[in-house]
Amino acid sequence: MSVLVVGSVALDSVETPFGRADDALGGSATYFAASASHHTRVQLVGVVGSDYPIQKLQDLAARGVDLSGLEQMEGESFRWRGRYRHDLNSAETLETRLGVFSHFRPKIPPQFRRAKYVFLGNIDPRLQLDVLQQVEKPTLVACDTMNFWIESRRADLLALLEKVDLITLNDAEARQLTEQANLVKAARWILSKGPRTVIIKKGEHGAFMFHANRVFFAPAYPLEDVFDPTGAGDSFAGGFMGYLARTDDLSEANMRRAVVFGSAMGSFVVEGFSIARLLEITPDDISRRVAEFHRLVTFDAEAL
Amino acid sequence: MSVLVVGSVALDSVETPFGRADDALGGSATYFAASASHHTRVQLVGVVGSDYPIQKLQDLAARGVDLSGLEQMEGESFRWRGRYRHDLNSAETLETRLGVFSHFRPKIPPQFRRAKYVFLGNIDPRLQLDVLQQVEKPTLVACDTMNFWIESRRADLLALLEKVDLITLNDAEARQLTEQANLVKAARWILSKGPRTVIIKKGEHGAFMFHANRVFFAPAYPLEDVFDPTGAGDSFAGGFMGYLARTDDLSEANMRRAVVFGSAMGSFVVEGFSIARLLEITPDDISRRVAEFHRLVTFDAEAL
Repeated sequence: MSVLVVGSVALDSVETPFGRADDALGGSATYFAASASHHTRVQLVGVVGSDYPIQKLQDLAARGVDLSGLEQMEGESFRWRGRYRHDLNSAETLETRLGVFSHFRPKIPPQFRRAKYVFLGNIDPRLQLDVLQQVEKPTLVACDTMNFWIESRRADLLALLEKVDLITLNDAEARQLTEQANLVKAARWILSKGPRTVIIKKGEHGAFMFHANRVFFAPAYPLEDVFDPTGAGDSFAGGFMGYLARTDDLSEANMRRAVVFGSAMGSFVVEGFSIARLLEITPDDISRRVAEFHRLVTFDAEAL
Repeated sequence: MSVLVVGSVALDSVETPFGRADDALGGSATYFAASASHHTRVQLVGVVGSDYPIQKLQDLAARGVDLSGLEQMEGESFRWRGRYRHDLNSAETLETRLGVFSHFRPKIPPQFRRAKYVFLGNIDPRLQLDVLQQVEKPTLVACDTMNFWIESRRADLLALLEKVDLITLNDAEARQLTEQANLVKAARWILSKGPRTVIIKKGEHGAFMFHANRVFFAPAYPLEDVFDPTGAGDSFAGGFMGYLARTDDLSEANMRRAVVFGSAMGSFVVEGFSIARLLEITPDDISRRVAEFHRLVTFDAEAL
């Protein structure tokens, strides 16, 4: 199965303690697609300005990302400029220029409308709802969101929650959305609003996947060198959804494996700027890292 | 095998968003002993003042904690007063009165000197070194420490590291000691100073156990209600050391199980004030929680 992603396609300028990148490929849909492309074919819907270096996306096209839903509009591309200091957990946004992204009205091409796996990247919940009008009977719809929409589009976001199967959000966003400090309570609150599955990402502290009566936890991989944390969450989502789409199996056991694949992809992307590492890694690299995740958490309870 | 613990025996007054306790049993040795006593016999060495409600420690004695190394001195007991706000991760210390603890010179009774498992709770590294002079050929010596000693007794702490097998410390302490922001690098630095095993505790974010070429991670149990985080680290250490002493097996597989038992004990203690929950829980409660830890992290990599 292929996976459809709708989200931002941006140019990021990032400074970290280890270096800087200017006008590098960024945006939620870009990271998601680069990550998911290791598992399955990806259909991307987004918008860029007339200044976007489209040819740089050829690396994604070569990996099986269908860019026919990428619209190019007159005007500037979405640009984000940020900085990470030694605490790599939180970015300091220096500048956000939405450009043509502020006029983004996702149009799902006819050939994408029967996508079975759909990821609504972090955009206005009204647009996320609009995308759902354009797709036919998906097997799984997942969405992401952020503090800005939780604050400014709360009613729309709640309407969206009724229609999605799964939401990914980070711990601060979960607390903000639910007004619950405790993540177990926050997850239960969100589950009561519609989704069957809630994934709460804690950055370097790993991720929880909650269902009504089950919880799974995967740590972040303990890397010695985190180069640039940008895109970790979307790469996680891409690995998770890509694996689910490839295996087309929504059992608890398979969704757990999908979380680990997501964590693995998140651990790769932060080893370099932009999507560089996601373009480099091989299926063997991924298998090895998943095996390392298994060794990291495994203990033998049988012998107790 | 029994386990020897040397540390503080205090009276804690704690406020949390959920209630308060005044002059409740506290201190590193108290929490450690209450936790370890679920697995094995415990020998406790500490000091209290003439005002200490010794009879309240009878609950520990009844659980197999040998209090013959608990010295009572003329003067006030060690008292700590603290507060947790909604962020239960960090305590705000309102008052610390060391009392007789400032004159503590641990004297290991003859019948404790052949202890095979020794835990040096968070006290002056000079005293921790002094305890090591008094014990004969232990199988495993573990120590804890804190920011105050890292700053004020760095040379002594480094001398101690050469002589212990294992150190437990939290992530902030590991970073402070090693001047490495990255925990993998911090662990490697500490391993190079002597210990074979480094356990870095991240509070609600779980714990890492590092060996020279292996790393294990156990999450904290995702509790819905954390009542009072005081003593979680010492209860972790008590569960870990108690399990190791009971099984007397230092294989990697068994040490991983010990970390999970430690995490389980840490998850119980925070469900109530002081050591209350540790006195209530049964072997079945512990087995059930360890099984829940297993369900929490297990995924099937065979099927990949």
